[in-house]
Amino acid sequence: MRHEHIISAKQLSRADIEEVLDHAAEIAADPEAYADRHAGKLLGLLFFEPSTRTKMSFTAAIKRLGGDIVDMGPVEYSSVKKGESLADTVRVVEGYADALVMRHPSEGSAQMASEFVDVPLLNGGDGAGQHPTQTLLDLYTIRENAGLDDLTIGIMGDLKYGRTVHSLAHALTNFDVHQHFISPESLQLPRSVRYDLHEEGATIREHTALEEVLSSLDVLYVTRIQEERFPDENEYREVAGEYQIDAGTLEAASDDLTVMHPLPRVDEIDHDVDDTEYATFFEQAHNGVPVRMALLDLLLEGQ
Amino acid sequence: MRHEHIISAKQLSRADIEEVLDHAAEIAADPEAYADRHAGKLLGLLFFEPSTRTKMSFTAAIKRLGGDIVDMGPVEYSSVKKGESLADTVRVVEGYADALVMRHPSEGSAQMASEFVDVPLLNGGDGAGQHPTQTLLDLYTIRENAGLDDLTIGIMGDLKYGRTVHSLAHALTNFDVHQHFISPESLQLPRSVRYDLHEEGATIREHTALEEVLSSLDVLYVTRIQEERFPDENEYREVAGEYQIDAGTLEAASDDLTVMHPLPRVDEIDHDVDDTEYATFFEQAHNGVPVRMALLDLLLEGQ
Amino acid sequence: MRHEHIISAKQLSRADIEEVLDHAAEIAADPEAYADRHAGKLLGLLFFEPSTRTKMSFTAAIKRLGGDIVDMGPVEYSSVKKGESLADTVRVVEGYADALVMRHPSEGSAQMASEFVDVPLLNGGDGAGQHPTQTLLDLYTIRENAGLDDLTIGIMGDLKYGRTVHSLAHALTNFDVHQHFISPESLQLPRSVRYDLHEEGATIREHTALEEVLSSLDVLYVTRIQEERFPDENEYREVAGEYQIDAGTLEAASDDLTVMHPLPRVDEIDHDVDDTEYATFFEQAHNGVPVRMALLDLLLEGQ
Repeated sequence: MRHEHIISAKQLSRADIEEVLDHAAEIAADPEAYADRHAGKLLGLLFFEPSTRTKMSFTAAIKRLGGDIVDMGPVEYSSVKKGESLADTVRVVEGYADALVMRHPSEGSAQMASEFVDVPLLNGGDGAGQHPTQTLLDLYTIRENAGLDDLTIGIMGDLKYGRTVHSLAHALTNFDVHQHFISPESLQLPRSVRYDLHEEGATIREHTALEEVLSSLDVLYVTRIQEERFPDENEYREVAGEYQIDAGTLEAASDDLTVMHPLPRVDEIDHDVDDTEYATFFEQAHNGVPVRMALLDLLLEGQ
Repeated sequence: MRHEHIISAKQLSRADIEEVLDHAAEIAADPEAYADRHAGKLLGLLFFEPSTRTKMSFTAAIKRLGGDIVDMGPVEYSSVKKGESLADTVRVVEGYADALVMRHPSEGSAQMASEFVDVPLLNGGDGAGQHPTQTLLDLYTIRENAGLDDLTIGIMGDLKYGRTVHSLAHALTNFDVHQHFISPESLQLPRSVRYDLHEEGATIREHTALEEVLSSLDVLYVTRIQEERFPDENEYREVAGEYQIDAGTLEAASDDLTVMHPLPRVDEIDHDVDDTEYATFFEQAHNGVPVRMALLDLLLEGQ
Repeated sequence: MRHEHIISAKQLSRADIEEVLDHAAEIAADPEAYADRHAGKLLGLLFFEPSTRTKMSFTAAIKRLGGDIVDMGPVEYSSVKKGESLADTVRVVEGYADALVMRHPSEGSAQMASEFVDVPLLNGGDGAGQHPTQTLLDLYTIRENAGLDDLTIGIMGDLKYGRTVHSLAHALTNFDVHQHFISPESLQLPRSVRYDLHEEGATIREHTALEEVLSSLDVLYVTRIQEERFPDENEYREVAGEYQIDAGTLEAASDDLTVMHPLPRVDEIDHDVDDTEYATFFEQAHNGVPVRMALLDLLLEGQ
């Protein structure tokens, strides 16, 4: 890995991404071979915001590599409460660990923190900013299920606020992918993201209804539409309802469709989809472990 | 272990119980022999409710077997707060661990969760429902101190609401045990539990005063009477006071009496009992480690 | 280590201190040699109050020795909330661990708790009482940077309420040290501490301005002046401002000056000091790991 820190999916070239995904595939094929690889190494966990999936899968990843964690714990119990700056906190904690994962509510905080430390820092989500390990596990899941070349993907739901979506869409421009964006008009891609994708030469199309494109998709990536984005509850229910899917919806899809979701879901994917061949969202969550193992291995190896 | 999940003490036959207790005794006799037995194995901790004893002793147990934990942490910091269903949470987390322990406020939740996962799930307490590992460590403590055959036990305190008591009483019907229940009338065994014990052929008697039976007991199992069960504080004090014991109370007991308590205690056992030969409640808490090591070993071995 | 528990810096003789610091230096010089030394050993963490530095560095320390932790977690999630006494909690938890670290808001609690357990107990701070491992890492940092013999140290800030300061000042009486205390009059050393230092034969002088003594110092130990010690905000700002330092302040200092701070800092040391040769406060925090490794190794070895 030529990078010292992993701050944004945008820093990763196609070669970087393929290095991580190839290594994740090697690890997934023979995890036992990596069980002692980083024995004695400590990963510092700095979660300034709640997290289940990211924190637990980073924990599982370092432990599956033979290492261990040093956890700051909930921020209410930390010296941040005593007015300590983020720069001071990370400079203290780097003395307790061989690498750091940080989640923080402020966009740009991961970049800033990385400038103060000598150990590798991985961004576990910085507010409305980046969440690169989520993007990598999404790419891994797409590649394993549908391939990343000559791919047609539909990304549906809240395309305006979802950092997961922006990051994924950008990363997909490294590959030969047709991207369809499906959302209500009020939650379309922000102009800046659309511009960015065009700049990267992406092939994108926008839709307001899934039917327009469903049958052509290899992958359907669903995200949640949040009630707080709407002025009143009735409008929310009406709009959100149009972007929920169930087993019936998917009858019009290709038999090979892969349905993904970053989770947690509420009701945007009905539980009757869970038992179909389409459902790949739990596998997607589980892929967080080999992908994070691969990243940690590459970063710790480089030290 | 013929079971895949451990949900309820009721699922355990006499043979199952003896398999666990025998194995716990082997482990307690030579813990070093098990120190690397499950190296690399991860136990997922899903505590949707506070716990000290159960969580810490499961943590110690898997670590004493060479394994490690992946902890969801307090529920306020989890995606449950974002509206995720329990079924989704456990299906995600099973991808991070080789077995799961769950504590949850809703009766029946452990059974439900176990139906969604392929890794072993252990119930660490489901509301007013079951807490099978508590029952097993109680049985282990009784067997080590007084034996489970030809045993006379008194169970005292809140017999109406205490799940620990119901579960233990049921499990004891597998052995040759005389069970005495001592409580105020308002906190007697529920009719359904009494019926269940009769169905199982148990020999039970109910009392309102400890003196009626103390001298005949091999084991006295004390539980807490909670203030909130009473309409007013004065009534509580009066009633609860009659079911508190101290060193003086125990002068009428057999020299071999074993006094147990699931802990935490408040004032139902006076501190002057702690230094007597009767006091077995700290040993009982400590027995949680070998008993949970035995269970985990049997479940992980079977995989 | 001739001590079974580490409760107070006052229990440590000069020989004890040197044993710990010498061993910490050995460990820091070759940490790999200690990586499996206490494999399988469990350190119980009982933090009844928030902590970042102490908890994380004890965690790193036991893991760098090959051991692991069993953490009670935040007190809100523990059985302490159900009214359990501290004596009961520690007697339960000692069954899950090979040693205990405890932080508790009540002065004297660590001493009391140690009387109930058979495993080594380390005081991680007991309210206004003692915090001996902080003192040891302070001494280690001083020795590494300036030596403990023929030392001139200035201790500045809140000298009235700071337990860190009292403990350090007392420990320094074991060595050949000139101690200067710099503070506003309202926050001078308490009479009892001053008396104690005189009893120990310490050479101390008190000042209200840093300029009086800065140029003669080998070490400047800065602590925070807290707003809540002052009747009104204006008075606080005026007084506190006089005891803040920046790179300009330090132009009058010796080139070899070592600036320390127990952290977290707010604004008593300006960030422009961080990049100077004087700044030793992050190194000081990091020294918590080898010093705690040394202590744990000595205590666990003795078992």
